[in-house]
Amino acid sequence: PAPEWLSAAVYGLPELRRAAIQGAQLVANPGCFPTAAILALAPAFAANLITPEAIVDAKTGITGAGRSPSRRVHFSEMHDSLAAYGLAGHRHTPEMVQALTHANAATPPAITFVPHLVPMNRGILATCYATLRAGITEAMVHAAYQAQYEGELFITLCDAPPETGWVRGSNRCLLSLHVQGQRLIVVSAIDNLMKGGAGQAIQNANLLFGLPETAGLALEGLWP
Amino acid sequence: PAPEWLSAAVYGLPELRRAAIQGAQLVANPGCFPTAAILALAPAFAANLITPEAIVDAKTGITGAGRSPSRRVHFSEMHDSLAAYGLAGHRHTPEMVQALTHANAATPPAITFVPHLVPMNRGILATCYATLRAGITEAMVHAAYQAQYEGELFITLCDAPPETGWVRGSNRCLLSLHVQGQRLIVVSAIDNLMKGGAGQAIQNANLLFGLPETAGLALEGLWP
Amino acid sequence: PAPEWLSAAVYGLPELRRAAIQGAQLVANPGCFPTAAILALAPAFAANLITPEAIVDAKTGITGAGRSPSRRVHFSEMHDSLAAYGLAGHRHTPEMVQALTHANAATPPAITFVPHLVPMNRGILATCYATLRAGITEAMVHAAYQAQYEGELFITLCDAPPETGWVRGSNRCLLSLHVQGQRLIVVSAIDNLMKGGAGQAIQNANLLFGLPETAGLALEGLWP
Amino acid sequence: PAPEWLSAAVYGLPELRRAAIQGAQLVANPGCFPTAAILALAPAFAANLITPEAIVDAKTGITGAGRSPSRRVHFSEMHDSLAAYGLAGHRHTPEMVQALTHANAATPPAITFVPHLVPMNRGILATCYATLRAGITEAMVHAAYQAQYEGELFITLCDAPPETGWVRGSNRCLLSLHVQGQRLIVVSAIDNLMKGGAGQAIQNANLLFGLPETAGLALEGLWP
Repeated sequence: PAPEWLSAAVYGLPELRRAAIQGAQLVANPGCFPTAAILALAPAFAANLITPEAIVDAKTGITGAGRSPSRRVHFSEMHDSLAAYGLAGHRHTPEMVQALTHANAATPPAITFVPHLVPMNRGILATCYATLRAGITEAMVHAAYQAQYEGELFITLCDAPPETGWVRGSNRCLLSLHVQGQRLIVVSAIDNLMKGGAGQAIQNANLLFGLPETAGLALEGLWP
Repeated sequence: PAPEWLSAAVYGLPELRRAAIQGAQLVANPGCFPTAAILALAPAFAANLITPEAIVDAKTGITGAGRSPSRRVHFSEMHDSLAAYGLAGHRHTPEMVQALTHANAATPPAITFVPHLVPMNRGILATCYATLRAGITEAMVHAAYQAQYEGELFITLCDAPPETGWVRGSNRCLLSLHVQGQRLIVVSAIDNLMKGGAGQAIQNANLLFGLPETAGLALEGLWP
Repeated sequence: PAPEWLSAAVYGLPELRRAAIQGAQLVANPGCFPTAAILALAPAFAANLITPEAIVDAKTGITGAGRSPSRRVHFSEMHDSLAAYGLAGHRHTPEMVQALTHANAATPPAITFVPHLVPMNRGILATCYATLRAGITEAMVHAAYQAQYEGELFITLCDAPPETGWVRGSNRCLLSLHVQGQRLIVVSAIDNLMKGGAGQAIQNANLLFGLPETAGLALEGLWP
Repeated sequence: PAPEWLSAAVYGLPELRRAAIQGAQLVANPGCFPTAAILALAPAFAANLITPEAIVDAKTGITGAGRSPSRRVHFSEMHDSLAAYGLAGHRHTPEMVQALTHANAATPPAITFVPHLVPMNRGILATCYATLRAGITEAMVHAAYQAQYEGELFITLCDAPPETGWVRGSNRCLLSLHVQGQRLIVVSAIDNLMKGGAGQAIQNANLLFGLPETAGLALEGLWP
């Protein structure tokens, strides 16, 4: 622990904090679940489109559980099965709250976050549920996300819900927006080892050192 | 279509409608997603513990997508990937609403339902999110579910979140209850081909013909 | 080690040693790979159809690698991958040789055995290659296997190559016979945890205690 | 069919036919199974180390079965299962025989080839079995393969049996050599869509157009 460095550290989500990262001395690389959830919800919070309560139902491949051998990551325990975990609280919830509060300090979010382990290697799909404020239309939702992510090379707004296989090995985040009455649903897909891990760290390093932001990073993944 | 039979048909969820099924001439066997969701939420609605808005984030194995060959069920499309679908509306949502309204006609539920395809063969995990009414405690939640499902051979309340692998090949539904502040989360696991399909049809037939309710049905599945 | 018991122990492959098992004081339950290979090759050796040199190329699900956590059984190491192992020698080779020598003591077999780990839970597929002696016809091969396994409830000769999914959870062994010129190929499928493990142990116990040989054993598995 | 072009076509395995490919007007890109098998066996045939009879037991991921939807590639049919096929003869056997005859025209090989479908996306593992001629030692085997593949960027001789996951997304072929008495076993791993497909086509195009042979081709794959 080095609490004296906390105030100097910048949260390294380039699409939300690019300028701060470029001038930073220390960048905190985001967690995998927070990356998927924050990119999905930040535009809606920033534009004040939704009420504070939001639900992040996230599903990760088994690489998200780490490399140490254990019962949890034994092939025959997880193959052809599916598990929720962290229901007593997960360390990534406060990370989401902090970054989304930064997006709209006036109305800090209240996040319910449940992660799930899925029998695949890579990928996170975060299905995020929020409630639109009165008077907010689907067109306003689309406009807010387009404005936020315009020109971003690593973020694509999709017409259909994205699949994690589409970003396998790439540093992209794919998002789709769905409005059902007052309910806003945002589906977010990343590769947890790329945009949710080492890929984003390279993106941050590129910003720190003044390199092209895409240097060394795959836009396209490996499919299938 | 045979609309003249609709009024005679009983919704075949034995744990909620056993007496009606026993005397029925026609039983409507429930869908796979509705079975997982209704068993998870009915006790909370029936005891008036939660507000009407609930979210059902459900994940199914690929057998849930049917047996006809298509791009959707091609091994290499779905293996090591994960997809949400039905975001424009799924035929199972009204089935959930109807059965949960039956549990508490005074306050009909408003269900947001998003199904997902997961790279496994069998199993549904439904993670259900609701909001507790003011004054409702965790102890009251546990008491309501225990009262509802006491003596049910095919339903078990678990201390830890259940995994779909635990019910592979069995007709059981495993439920776990989690309270985070005012948020109630119920995790529900079934085998979509058993309790969510043919298994439940056999359970209904047993009731119709006066046989032991467990006749021909596995309590224990195949693991791993 | 209790070498004084070795001479009293009977090798517990019921289809080849039933009478001896019924009168035994001690039964040695066969290994998973030997069960698949010996059932595939014993009729050909016993009827003197093939030369001594045979190759067993066997593929097992990950349950075959045991339940202890390790790098080898980590989900992300084995998922979507495939590995040969034991190329410096595997303890199951002498078990195969001993049992096949028992089938034809005059010409003891020479077995090359290579096991592989496949990303699935259960199942062994053994593809066995041998050379027909001069004058042996395909009809003679079929006749020998039919004679050996006639009336066996747990063994089925298939017209098409069997798949391991067809025996998942069952105690069956499925065999198919293929002749290409002088080459005999036998494909053998078992569930390594059933006919290749605990299932066969129950079959042996049934024989020891004079119970029906199928007591407690599934003829049909769980599919899919 | 354009039989008049057959005589002009060069078989496009660069490691064996580089000079001919560079001057060719038409290059025939090899099949996936033949690539794995020929690279595994050609040095042994060329150096006259083995007798003509060889067995190729090959295992492929489901992408090897093509993209058209069918029962064969339905997720729930192939997941957690394993199948042999093509036992009545496979179009890739004559392709192997032709190329290996080219390696040693004096003693044309007799190949027994059995392909298997494995529940993974990409990758071929070919386990090849041959018989060493009298007097051939393990050291002579290693020397022949090292001489053949010295300097080849896409071929690596491994000390341990290679896994298909190690070449996922790369154009490499990994080989390991194992001698058990008179038996030679060669394990060969490729990505069927890269070295076994489009990757090798790019390698051939690079040769045809005088580009660096590795242009556009990944040496390292995506792991896990």
